[in-house]
Amino acid sequence: MSGRLFGIGVGPGDPELLTLKAVRLIADSPVIAYPAPAGGAESMARQIAAPHIPSGKTEIVIETPMIPGQFPANDIYDRYATEIATHLNAGDDVAVLCEGDPFLFGSFMYLFGRLSADHPTEVVPGVSSLGACAARAEVPLVSRNQVLTVIPAPIEEAELERRIAGSDAVAIMKVGRHLAKVQRVLEKLNRIDDATYVERATLDNEVVMPLAEVTAEAAPYFSMILLRTSEASDA
Amino acid sequence: MSGRLFGIGVGPGDPELLTLKAVRLIADSPVIAYPAPAGGAESMARQIAAPHIPSGKTEIVIETPMIPGQFPANDIYDRYATEIATHLNAGDDVAVLCEGDPFLFGSFMYLFGRLSADHPTEVVPGVSSLGACAARAEVPLVSRNQVLTVIPAPIEEAELERRIAGSDAVAIMKVGRHLAKVQRVLEKLNRIDDATYVERATLDNEVVMPLAEVTAEAAPYFSMILLRTSEASDA
Repeated sequence: MSGRLFGIGVGPGDPELLTLKAVRLIADSPVIAYPAPAGGAESMARQIAAPHIPSGKTEIVIETPMIPGQFPANDIYDRYATEIATHLNAGDDVAVLCEGDPFLFGSFMYLFGRLSADHPTEVVPGVSSLGACAARAEVPLVSRNQVLTVIPAPIEEAELERRIAGSDAVAIMKVGRHLAKVQRVLEKLNRIDDATYVERATLDNEVVMPLAEVTAEAAPYFSMILLRTSEASDA
Repeated sequence: MSGRLFGIGVGPGDPELLTLKAVRLIADSPVIAYPAPAGGAESMARQIAAPHIPSGKTEIVIETPMIPGQFPANDIYDRYATEIATHLNAGDDVAVLCEGDPFLFGSFMYLFGRLSADHPTEVVPGVSSLGACAARAEVPLVSRNQVLTVIPAPIEEAELERRIAGSDAVAIMKVGRHLAKVQRVLEKLNRIDDATYVERATLDNEVVMPLAEVTAEAAPYFSMILLRTSEASDA
């Protein structure tokens, strides 16, 4: 009988923001897998879950090359899916740790696509960086009947401008080396003063500040810019 | 010294999807507050958190009239903010339970706006219905550099159509009595076959089905429609 595959959202960073279900499934699964940049740098997902990973687990590091502007090649996920399937076929449950929520820009979907047809699979939602950044910035994402647009910063500049211009409320994710581009677009739209910059929300080295005051040339991958139009009715 | 005000996301429904932090703060706060429809119907937020609420708490039911097409009047939040402030001023911590995530369409923002200037306040993010519905529908929300648009179903039909037409991936929230309108718009855009309907995600009476097969005239408030365009690169 196949083991079960779990895609587990471990939340935005604070280990206390794991769900009870995540903690239980991590404790019960003999095999734990998590993404990490190729080359030996630490896995963010593992770091977040670390206090909840009992010793003695088999661990699979899903090493993915981090090349700016590129997504990992399919054969990487083919290879790790095969490795994970070996454990599932042996009857062992495998818990794949995912930063934030597994199905909001998570790479777990690539393993899900390769394994869920043949193995019982469950996606366990987690606290996403969206809610976490809004909480830490003390900026509600959306209220009443506002529309929220979630935009990955790497999209092309004209498209970024078009998307922001048409939106009530915006969360710009994956800011990284696209920081200057986002600042430029918001300056042009005359909305930079409505924007809040959040870096590593809920972690010890968290940064929250008005975007207009950010002078760095690049941001970490785990950063977000929130833009909101207050409604008169918000009060 | 003032007590602390916590806005606590209790997640989408399954009590095991509370975070460790939510459980701790609920246990430690002598006063628990939560929204409920006026007239005595049960509070969804309290129901979700119920297994984690120790006995002996002071409980404040934030009763809000549920009138289709209207938002509760400001004086309701004025009144409850005053009641909560009484406890904070007495030095007691108050935990306000919020369905899903507090800052994604949550009414906690109205208490936050009235109380956070005078009392230490912390927003504790929770698992939002967005991630939960995607997990249960087994439909990733967005991948790679797709833009996600989160749309409240009550917006005007032409605007709904315009928003959906321009989006890669869409989550339509607060479906309720707007179900037929959403179906009509998706039929017109020839996208109804890409849409999944999710009702009461992660609860025992959860429903997940293709939107095209939904024949009900209205949906519960806690329902969502997910629409996604697969990218060739998703594989």
